[in-house]
Amino acid sequence: MLSEAFVHDVTAIVGADHVRRDEDARRVYGTDALKRGHPADLVVLPGSTAQIAAVARLCHEMRVPLVPRGAGTGYTGGAVPLLGGIVLSLERLNRILTIDEENLLAVVQPAVITGDLQRAVEALGLFYPPDPQSLNESSIGGNVAECAGGPRAFKYGVTKRYVLALEAVLPTGEVVRTGSKAVKNVVGYDLTQLLVGSEGTLAIVTEVTLRLMPKPPAVATLRACFADVPTAARAVTALLRRRVVPVTLELVDEDSLDALAAYVGARLAPEGTGALLLVEVDGTPEAVASEALEVAAACRDVGALEVLTARDEAEREQLWRVRRELSYALRPIAPRKINNDVVVPRGRVPELFALVEGLRGKYRLRIPCFGHAGDGNIHVNIMIDPADGDVLRRAEAAVGELFRGVVALEGSISGEHGIGFSKAPYLTLELSDETIALMKRVKQAFDPHGILNPGKIFPV
Amino acid sequence: MLSEAFVHDVTAIVGADHVRRDEDARRVYGTDALKRGHPADLVVLPGSTAQIAAVARLCHEMRVPLVPRGAGTGYTGGAVPLLGGIVLSLERLNRILTIDEENLLAVVQPAVITGDLQRAVEALGLFYPPDPQSLNESSIGGNVAECAGGPRAFKYGVTKRYVLALEAVLPTGEVVRTGSKAVKNVVGYDLTQLLVGSEGTLAIVTEVTLRLMPKPPAVATLRACFADVPTAARAVTALLRRRVVPVTLELVDEDSLDALAAYVGARLAPEGTGALLLVEVDGTPEAVASEALEVAAACRDVGALEVLTARDEAEREQLWRVRRELSYALRPIAPRKINNDVVVPRGRVPELFALVEGLRGKYRLRIPCFGHAGDGNIHVNIMIDPADGDVLRRAEAAVGELFRGVVALEGSISGEHGIGFSKAPYLTLELSDETIALMKRVKQAFDPHGILNPGKIFPV
Repeated sequence: MLSEAFVHDVTAIVGADHVRRDEDARRVYGTDALKRGHPADLVVLPGSTAQIAAVARLCHEMRVPLVPRGAGTGYTGGAVPLLGGIVLSLERLNRILTIDEENLLAVVQPAVITGDLQRAVEALGLFYPPDPQSLNESSIGGNVAECAGGPRAFKYGVTKRYVLALEAVLPTGEVVRTGSKAVKNVVGYDLTQLLVGSEGTLAIVTEVTLRLMPKPPAVATLRACFADVPTAARAVTALLRRRVVPVTLELVDEDSLDALAAYVGARLAPEGTGALLLVEVDGTPEAVASEALEVAAACRDVGALEVLTARDEAEREQLWRVRRELSYALRPIAPRKINNDVVVPRGRVPELFALVEGLRGKYRLRIPCFGHAGDGNIHVNIMIDPADGDVLRRAEAAVGELFRGVVALEGSISGEHGIGFSKAPYLTLELSDETIALMKRVKQAFDPHGILNPGKIFPV
Repeated sequence: MLSEAFVHDVTAIVGADHVRRDEDARRVYGTDALKRGHPADLVVLPGSTAQIAAVARLCHEMRVPLVPRGAGTGYTGGAVPLLGGIVLSLERLNRILTIDEENLLAVVQPAVITGDLQRAVEALGLFYPPDPQSLNESSIGGNVAECAGGPRAFKYGVTKRYVLALEAVLPTGEVVRTGSKAVKNVVGYDLTQLLVGSEGTLAIVTEVTLRLMPKPPAVATLRACFADVPTAARAVTALLRRRVVPVTLELVDEDSLDALAAYVGARLAPEGTGALLLVEVDGTPEAVASEALEVAAACRDVGALEVLTARDEAEREQLWRVRRELSYALRPIAPRKINNDVVVPRGRVPELFALVEGLRGKYRLRIPCFGHAGDGNIHVNIMIDPADGDVLRRAEAAVGELFRGVVALEGSISGEHGIGFSKAPYLTLELSDETIALMKRVKQAFDPHGILNPGKIFPV
């Protein structure tokens, strides 16, 4: 419980209109897309970097947990105030400050919705590639905290590649600026890249300078159906050997296609399809035309059952439908989706699917999988009813076995969602004690009293 | 001076054949491309990660400075043992361990020469883009330590974009592994990116896992001559507006062209050329052909004096000659080149050149400039005879004024070479006291006794 004096001081900083203590707010701001929350003691909605610095200083002095929050769309509980304290919602810092066409960069506040930024820059012929599934709800600040990925990452990389500079408030209250508007910068340690993906445990990001690109003038979309995942994986290898670097290489497995067929009332892929690839290439119209032919040829070479190339925007939308409807299609299967964003070296994707197939049998679970085949980053969705204790236990055992298997395949237990608190117990599967100890010393260099987003990343 | 007991212990770790104390070795290993050295007390050439860990542990215990060294091609004295102690040359760790065509990655030891790796992967149709000017002498370990750039960085980014995982020895002797072979990884803090560009002050990199790409099937090279730098800069903006993303956008100024003309005995550009752009585009043959036309049109639109497109490899080599001969052409001007790799937002390149023009007049110095116009990263080469005290003082004043001007242009004092010790006095021009203090706390998290590469980055 926070003292009245403390609450009074915080209120004096941000104003009474921007502090909430009602039970509703404490509960809503105490949870995120993981749906396993803990109530905040106080919800604070600051309006400026200076206010955030003052709140941080106070929390540091008084040893009060301070949990920064973006749009709350994270899957690993990164925004949950596990130990109570203050949830600091950045929602009022929601402006695009600059779109600089000359220098191909944008300066934005953290609560700008990613999709809004994309539309704003695309209207000027520019391009901000990172496209997490949640792009119409998640914010740039959250994308930076988690280093969000998305389907376009194969060609364009994840969020970190686009962050040039940050303004951030340290848990001790200092305001620092990292990086610069220059696209190259090797002055001192790369704190920018250290903060990207640090899950709000090192600093509170208050301004983000992003690199933009010219928007590629053309794009082509193809859908190829295969008998099974190993054949689809061979198609990926075959098209890379033809020196094509697609924007997107989305893979959807049979279990997902079954769920989709049940949801839309019709199969969207031909009979016998055990794996589906959605491929996009972009660039000049000439490059796109020739690369689309290469992609189709590569798929046919390895024995695709069907290859479709969209001839117009309507057909493109139709091909993407498989992927877009998937999240909705999984909902009727079970009330909860444990979304595991595991990643393996691309060539080991078939082994990952074989591992999942083993888990389906052993633990009697529906596990539809889809994801970014080019990156080896597959969302392994374990569908459960959390009210059923037996199912929950089987699912937990399956998650542990999945993570151990992924590490054995030289992969990583998280490619996109981060660790938060839901994956913290598994950190030691992937990182050595020495590495974790080093990370904790880095954390301490930023946050000597451990007030910022406590209980995250590291196993307790 | 090191004690005999300490030297004995180090010798026991690496073997007598791999320890050198002769004056010649102490001097040669005590300097790098900056040419301002300090002799090592002992030169150690370890043969394994385990040996490096043992030497580090010993240095940590005995508080002996330990300075890792790659190929010694750095421009800021990063490999110089400023306080004596051990120079740890990684030259024996020089093997390419794996080139994995399936997963598009390579695992290499730090002393592999960058150009050798490029040729090895290109023979397989693969591509490692970073191409520092020194690529035939500098090593991957040094490239990682400095986050090397190069002409291709505009399209392909600098070294950091290609480093997936590292094995590194901490100054306290622990061996850590950061990252993984998966191309996405958000498990814990991004220590990989923190180590890249940390100039050998946080850890000793002993193994590097690099991401590769399919080699683009075609490339086109153009050379365009302009009356002045502002016109060349307008051409860059114009071609980006046509949504072309070239691989390379190299800019050469009039002072450099004059030096080149004197060196080769003939002007390589038409009369009246005040700025020259070398542009390369790559991709499918169709894309390359259409983008080359766009580049040429953009250059002509803004009033290029001449635009040449190479029709074959011989012509391509001829166009690149301007850039390749430049380093040699500068040598007859003065015995020392102070190479300042400053960087500004691209749109401010004309202001940077105006700043340099002011310095030429004010300080009566030859300052040929060339560099990566797409990145705003320009090498400002102040040519001096260090034996002339007056020239040296004028040059130092010019460097200070250049750096202050670059920061005022929202740029950075180093885009490629790092800080080392030669730029350490200028760090405070760019970074705030709070940021520097934070970086020092990070340093301490890795190196509590400050034994690893002391005297670098931070002003003393």
